[in-house]
Amino acid sequence: MSEFNNVTVTRAANVYFDGKVTSRKVTFEDGSFKTLGIMMPGDYTFGTNEHELMEITAGECEILLAGAQQWLPIKGGESFEVPANSSFDVKAKTIIDYCCSYIA
Amino acid sequence: MSEFNNVTVTRAANVYFDGKVTSRKVTFEDGSFKTLGIMMPGDYTFGTNEHELMEITAGECEILLAGAQQWLPIKGGESFEVPANSSFDVKAKTIIDYCCSYIA
Repeated sequence: MSEFNNVTVTRAANVYFDGKVTSRKVTFEDGSFKTLGIMMPGDYTFGTNEHELMEITAGECEILLAGAQQWLPIKGGESFEVPANSSFDVKAKTIIDYCCSYIA
Repeated sequence: MSEFNNVTVTRAANVYFDGKVTSRKVTFEDGSFKTLGIMMPGDYTFGTNEHELMEITAGECEILLAGAQQWLPIKGGESFEVPANSSFDVKAKTIIDYCCSYIA
């Protein structure tokens, strides 16, 4: 989907890592939500409360899931999942445009 | 309004200034739209095609409208307007969270 229809968007951004990572919350009619975010180039560690689907809309990064041995290259058009109550590292080689879905 | 309801959000971000300024397009039922954006600290010049209302949700900056003599301090909760077919300079002293409305 190139756009999300009939949604609610929260005006204020979520700001992490001194603004190097920011996102906007998009809430759907069924109460589920996604965040649309931007990462500036850099290294980040994110924790998860829920099972997440991270779709990379544009950019190039490498990711390392908690417990994994190997960094995985991920680029625009690709995605990865992260279990709940876990974490993952990202090396953003370019600016990253992403969509994160929270899967119950 | 702290949120926008019954809107369409474009998935892909708009990226300017090597990603130091990014925004997301929010389209309303009547076809009008706004952009929700982030500026990293820095100096920027923006051109306008339409009359714009720039609302600063969070952050501190100074702005200089085309033809103006004096920089104006603007902070979260404040706003300014820019005529169509004009330009303005922004000195973002912090990360800036903004909402830009295009006024016909």
